[in-house]
Amino acid sequence: MKSSLSFDLNQYLSERVRLIDDALEHFLPGEDVRPQNLHRAMRYSTLSGGKRLRPVLVIAGAEAVGGDAQMVLPTACAIELIHTFSLIHDDLPAIDNDTLRRGRPTCHVQFGEATAILAGDALFASAFELITRNASIVPAERVVHVVALIAEASGTGGMVGGQMVDIESEGKETDAETLEYIHRHKTAALIRAAVVSGAILAGAEQWQVETLSRYGELTGLAFQIADDLLNVTGDPRKTGKAVGTDTARGKATYPALFGIEASRQRAYQLVQQAVEALYSFGDSAEPLRAIAHLMVEREG
Amino acid sequence: MKSSLSFDLNQYLSERVRLIDDALEHFLPGEDVRPQNLHRAMRYSTLSGGKRLRPVLVIAGAEAVGGDAQMVLPTACAIELIHTFSLIHDDLPAIDNDTLRRGRPTCHVQFGEATAILAGDALFASAFELITRNASIVPAERVVHVVALIAEASGTGGMVGGQMVDIESEGKETDAETLEYIHRHKTAALIRAAVVSGAILAGAEQWQVETLSRYGELTGLAFQIADDLLNVTGDPRKTGKAVGTDTARGKATYPALFGIEASRQRAYQLVQQAVEALYSFGDSAEPLRAIAHLMVEREG
Repeated sequence: MKSSLSFDLNQYLSERVRLIDDALEHFLPGEDVRPQNLHRAMRYSTLSGGKRLRPVLVIAGAEAVGGDAQMVLPTACAIELIHTFSLIHDDLPAIDNDTLRRGRPTCHVQFGEATAILAGDALFASAFELITRNASIVPAERVVHVVALIAEASGTGGMVGGQMVDIESEGKETDAETLEYIHRHKTAALIRAAVVSGAILAGAEQWQVETLSRYGELTGLAFQIADDLLNVTGDPRKTGKAVGTDTARGKATYPALFGIEASRQRAYQLVQQAVEALYSFGDSAEPLRAIAHLMVEREG
Repeated sequence: MKSSLSFDLNQYLSERVRLIDDALEHFLPGEDVRPQNLHRAMRYSTLSGGKRLRPVLVIAGAEAVGGDAQMVLPTACAIELIHTFSLIHDDLPAIDNDTLRRGRPTCHVQFGEATAILAGDALFASAFELITRNASIVPAERVVHVVALIAEASGTGGMVGGQMVDIESEGKETDAETLEYIHRHKTAALIRAAVVSGAILAGAEQWQVETLSRYGELTGLAFQIADDLLNVTGDPRKTGKAVGTDTARGKATYPALFGIEASRQRAYQLVQQAVEALYSFGDSAEPLRAIAHLMVEREG
């Protein structure tokens, strides 16, 4: 095992992203299969060069407790499909009305609104189908646990619930509690579910699940603050998204409520806490430590 | 066990619908819990007096192989949530643009489009969470099998895929093969998944699963033909939906392609075949036989 000094995050990420991209390419239905347009839209939005942060976290969660990528690959891909589904629906005219994503036209701009709604729905369904494929590798009890966890993190108790409160808060004065609710549900819930799912599939003990849950929560919050900051200060050539849109919409964001400098400090503090939470893990958690730092140091 | 002569379908249905309605009321998040508007929309569309045909089929599928309602109730409710999710999204302006459902304004008319999209998404997520609760009653392997089955029946290989082809066929001349594709995917897939899921959770043998799968496919097709017929000849006070909308939209339907009389005959023929498929089941399949007839004899 590598020592932490020699850990090469770039190499680590590029190897795992390649695994994930190959698996996504393989799992997604082909464009020559009926209904072709739906499959084109599903593939267009999924295979568009995302950072694959969430599926990498599934793998890193498994590795932290002694598992490996192959053990969790279907679930890693499932989490990416859920993330993509949420982006497609959030971009819709009735919600955020975004036209640019990862430097390309959003799904509904490219394929029309009806197809975009259905492509999101189909990706969400495919995600659960994919998770069940993990049952050919690990015991069924673990898979059921992970389905429950990911479903909860995606729905009203997680991502979708956070998005709902986010929309409702637009143009209104938002208090810190509501902002925390939005970040915790809209972003942190799925990031936490990713790390924890990987660990559960790999047979983690209860204390490990709890520690990684805390790691996921903290890094998830840090990630969203960094995202809010990039919307203010980022370079659209690197983020692939328009800048200043949150302010224009009166969105509830961390920098809007606390200012840029305090937001930066808070993000670094959360990452610090996340890394400290892993103190009883050895070198196997080195990727998780490095990824925590990356979450706030990224440019896109 | 009752003999088939004395089987009282109305009593059977009202008992099971009460069980399902109580369970749905219990499972759905409360309107006093954040995000309240999302939960209002989820409850509004789900608790609106649907026939509960699909969840009843989950129970009847379990009973046919010696199980009972309590054994499958979470999954029965999950199937109803998926059905409701699909209705909410299909009714959206970008898809069918329907304003009336079960005699009331559709979800987006009542709550706005953004909330309707997210309510559908949240119901879909809740469905998978619910299915996993079945693991406290039956072995995890069966639950994983059912998650896979229902996810496939809901997504591009089932309901969503069928809806996509349905939309694409609007206003175009549609051949019998495409119409069959739409019916098989949009409607029959989830009905089949309902019956089969109940049976699998109750520990069905392979031949029983295969037989019930055939029953579900045949009755699902019959149900859709009956639905198409009701759109032409139904009474809006009984169906709770506007009449003639399929024709106005140039939708691909059975009566449009083959005429009303041939469609009626085809529906009855499918029901006959579905009932015949159950010949090796005893009295425990009596509800399934009666439901098959109901599917084409209903008025709404």
